[in-house]
Amino acid sequence: MVKEIILANAPTGLPVIEYGKNNSTFALREVELPSLKEDQVLLQTIFLSNDPAQRGWIQKDQISERGYVPPILPGDRVRAGNIAKVLKSTSSLIKEGTLVQSISGWVEQQVVDAKQVTPLPDMPGFSPSIFFGALGGTGMTAYFGLKDVCKFKEGQSIIVSGAAGATGSAVVQLAKHVFKASRVIGIAGSEEKCEWVKKIGADVALNYKSPTFVNDLIEAAKPSYVDCYFDNVGGSILNACLRVVKRYGRIAACGAISSYNGDRSQSTLDNWFEIITNRLTVQGFIIFDFLDRRDEAIQVLSSAVKEGKFSASDGETLVRSSFEKVPEVWMRLFRGENTGKLVTQIADL
Amino acid sequence: MVKEIILANAPTGLPVIEYGKNNSTFALREVELPSLKEDQVLLQTIFLSNDPAQRGWIQKDQISERGYVPPILPGDRVRAGNIAKVLKSTSSLIKEGTLVQSISGWVEQQVVDAKQVTPLPDMPGFSPSIFFGALGGTGMTAYFGLKDVCKFKEGQSIIVSGAAGATGSAVVQLAKHVFKASRVIGIAGSEEKCEWVKKIGADVALNYKSPTFVNDLIEAAKPSYVDCYFDNVGGSILNACLRVVKRYGRIAACGAISSYNGDRSQSTLDNWFEIITNRLTVQGFIIFDFLDRRDEAIQVLSSAVKEGKFSASDGETLVRSSFEKVPEVWMRLFRGENTGKLVTQIADL
Repeated sequence: MVKEIILANAPTGLPVIEYGKNNSTFALREVELPSLKEDQVLLQTIFLSNDPAQRGWIQKDQISERGYVPPILPGDRVRAGNIAKVLKSTSSLIKEGTLVQSISGWVEQQVVDAKQVTPLPDMPGFSPSIFFGALGGTGMTAYFGLKDVCKFKEGQSIIVSGAAGATGSAVVQLAKHVFKASRVIGIAGSEEKCEWVKKIGADVALNYKSPTFVNDLIEAAKPSYVDCYFDNVGGSILNACLRVVKRYGRIAACGAISSYNGDRSQSTLDNWFEIITNRLTVQGFIIFDFLDRRDEAIQVLSSAVKEGKFSASDGETLVRSSFEKVPEVWMRLFRGENTGKLVTQIADL
Repeated sequence: MVKEIILANAPTGLPVIEYGKNNSTFALREVELPSLKEDQVLLQTIFLSNDPAQRGWIQKDQISERGYVPPILPGDRVRAGNIAKVLKSTSSLIKEGTLVQSISGWVEQQVVDAKQVTPLPDMPGFSPSIFFGALGGTGMTAYFGLKDVCKFKEGQSIIVSGAAGATGSAVVQLAKHVFKASRVIGIAGSEEKCEWVKKIGADVALNYKSPTFVNDLIEAAKPSYVDCYFDNVGGSILNACLRVVKRYGRIAACGAISSYNGDRSQSTLDNWFEIITNRLTVQGFIIFDFLDRRDEAIQVLSSAVKEGKFSASDGETLVRSSFEKVPEVWMRLFRGENTGKLVTQIADL
């Protein structure tokens, strides 16, 4: 028997992490491992990717055709990026000991068809979890968001919110060191995070919890406003940024973590009119639309990593945890407790 | 002596139309007419254009560099589109009796340099006020909004808010009869307006004051959502529309009349996340950016008018008024009392 974690009650507000209550969001379930058929592999989960997007996938009362992935329904295992080690294999293509990537989610061990998993390429000297972060969905989101959505050009300026988070910290580094921004303004939620955001490449870092934040932002955007805003958070920070994007500027709408847990105070956008008067373009995007250009991104990102322009280890918070506590670690995303990509490790490599 | 109307107190909320109060928005002023120097004209205002945008120009505490025109400051004459007759001329280029267009605003008579005004072309059989509406800024806003901002293609579907208003009714007509939309959904504020919106070309018209509006909109957008939303109003209608624009769809942000008078309840956009999940593009625009393509627009629009595809007279509410009551007529824009372009006539042709 092995354990998996399923959605028990789809939340509308803050998830209830404790198991076994009336309104617990998640439940532990024990499942039997089947024996391997032909061309299958037995996987031991090593790393789990923690993504704010998962909060959207479990939201109550979704219109499934409006989502970009099928919703996770009560009773379903929680979907997550998963790096696992092959313990047994009946496939000629995948050897025991291989590390593979999948979206199998919150499960200890499982048997799957070999074709459902992707062996990880070698990246000597780096943790395999780099394929969640710098060389995974996070790095690619930052890359395509800058290149295709912001249409970012050398010498331009940019504001990045959630700048201490996974995607935000990747955007800060890539904007400054690869896309050669003239000025990167990072926004994060503590003085400590702001220091880190400056260390990885921001020219200025602003704490949005400061009472002077809105004015600080206006000052930081002087004298000529910014070309682009890379939005990972939505809400009141987005509202403030609408006032400091340059005429004809662009806003890449990548995430809206401020409202994922139902905080309606974060839905007020009373600076909307700036979009009209200053002819701003807001473009929403999802990394899935760019996967046919994965090779292009990985080439740029891995060069940047090797040249030290894009730090993989700096950009990761690795938490070793028991399997039961996987949801608790995940919740750190919404408490602002991580810097960079938040990765959970539940077994030894 | 002639009269003009100036901004007395810049409003933050609903303008106070009555003159002579502590907080009156406007004031009447008498000014002396200078005698004509060389190359000048004496103008008698005939028609005034009423535009929701004027509310923005008089808003209190504007950051002038963020606006698209200089703000009107207390003491300034209120700016407005103006069609006037030349009573006297010392210019060899403009004869007495000529009708000219300018943005001279709320003034009875005035003396200006001949080069500051544009003689109107002939459009036999139509009121000169057509150059405010169908063949003016309104028609051009609808045309470029559809063509360049929505990137609207034959056979696509569209939602238009403020569909009984000047720009909205122009969009409905052009979308259906010129751009050959498969489906036009108009949104307006009464059953009577909805009937009119259907008459001019909408396949469906929805009353946003109906308690079932949000569901009506979802039903009307079935089975496959709409390609485009032409937004003249912002606020809760925009919020509802975010749920029914198709994946990769476009939103033309043209106006936000719902919030011009400071109604903060109209700032809640809790469907913002749809922009991300469905990869929507929101693009703000102002007609000024397209003026170098004026000839292109006027050619399409005047052909449409002549072919009966775009009704100039249907799309106009003409109000004959004393000069003193010009602000009162203007306020009808914000009470939803007009259909089509609201034009004030203060003197005979």
